[in-house]
Amino acid sequence: MQIKTFYSYFRSSTAYRLRIALNLKGITPDRTIYINLRDGEQQNAEYRAVNPMAAVPALELKDGNILTQSLALLEWLEEHHPSPALLPKDSLQRAQIRAFTQIIGCDIHPVNNLRILNYLSTHLAVNETTKKQWIHHWIHAAFHALEAQVVSAGGKTFCFGDTPSMADVCLVPQWYNAERFAVDLTPYPALAQRVAHCRNLPAFIAAAPENQPDAI
Amino acid sequence: MQIKTFYSYFRSSTAYRLRIALNLKGITPDRTIYINLRDGEQQNAEYRAVNPMAAVPALELKDGNILTQSLALLEWLEEHHPSPALLPKDSLQRAQIRAFTQIIGCDIHPVNNLRILNYLSTHLAVNETTKKQWIHHWIHAAFHALEAQVVSAGGKTFCFGDTPSMADVCLVPQWYNAERFAVDLTPYPALAQRVAHCRNLPAFIAAAPENQPDAI
Repeated sequence: MQIKTFYSYFRSSTAYRLRIALNLKGITPDRTIYINLRDGEQQNAEYRAVNPMAAVPALELKDGNILTQSLALLEWLEEHHPSPALLPKDSLQRAQIRAFTQIIGCDIHPVNNLRILNYLSTHLAVNETTKKQWIHHWIHAAFHALEAQVVSAGGKTFCFGDTPSMADVCLVPQWYNAERFAVDLTPYPALAQRVAHCRNLPAFIAAAPENQPDAI
Repeated sequence: MQIKTFYSYFRSSTAYRLRIALNLKGITPDRTIYINLRDGEQQNAEYRAVNPMAAVPALELKDGNILTQSLALLEWLEEHHPSPALLPKDSLQRAQIRAFTQIIGCDIHPVNNLRILNYLSTHLAVNETTKKQWIHHWIHAAFHALEAQVVSAGGKTFCFGDTPSMADVCLVPQWYNAERFAVDLTPYPALAQRVAHCRNLPAFIAAAPENQPDAI
């Protein structure tokens, strides 16, 4: 099933995951539509008809069906375009990699994303310093666990095994996000090494926020 | 692979998901260890050695491996015990069901769970009324989307299709959670109907928080 439209935003770490996965699998959507989250374009009626959750990424397929939620999209991509695989065949490793992606996708990102940060400011009158502490707190709480998992996996180049997996696809955008918020990342040398390695690969370079047409 | 230990807590909606799925598939772990989240037992060194994220559920397998993150556990169960299936064969429906579970598992639950509510109280001095508004806000933001998805799916008894899927496995615990926080659920008649149907089934009844040995 071909992808007609990819809805993206350069700075969204969830759209960034999709860009990496699409690049690794050599898939080019027919078109990309950029939804400016900073300007609130995701709240427009037109985009809410695409995704009522008012979030990117979303994929519109050739048959008109629309798919959302980045981790569900990664699974869909894996089922439709299994090569190169972003999940290994071994069921235990698949579970470990999925858990890694969900620590990022459930326990960090949704707590630190734009709608939450906006709510903290507008409804709870949280100032910038306290908001930064919030962001850092949830990143550190999870990065300690992620670091231990990667060390335990024992790979040299990627988070799990010798090829990029969904774990790397999720880690690199989350790392970018942590850097953007000036998190001290020195406690995570194993994660740092995997990110540095990935960032030299064409699929990751082409997916980077600063290399998107809508980057500002 | 047999399950040696299931780490649960009666009121955890993520452990509740696992209980439903285990019951639907007819799997009984050798033992269940109850981690009292209200008393902070998840922070003990002993449990942090099991799950550094200090969260339930977790599964310890016979071979000593430990698996975490409820949505990853559902996928692992599905791969190891495919019958009865909690995901259909059709790839589009799988993507839709996974997206539904992730709206709950990423966009509602992690934002409203105990660690966040504790942080709001202790670090941001948020009072109970404002905390309740926070909880309601994120539930309503997502339930509107879930209601539309279930209506669109056109089933009569379950969220998607004629058999329980991962969607129902995630919806029922989230609904319980919404009721516990006195959310007005009248805008969601389609969700209400599916929940009512599920709650009459033995696998769901046996998994309900009030029917757990650690319920207080």
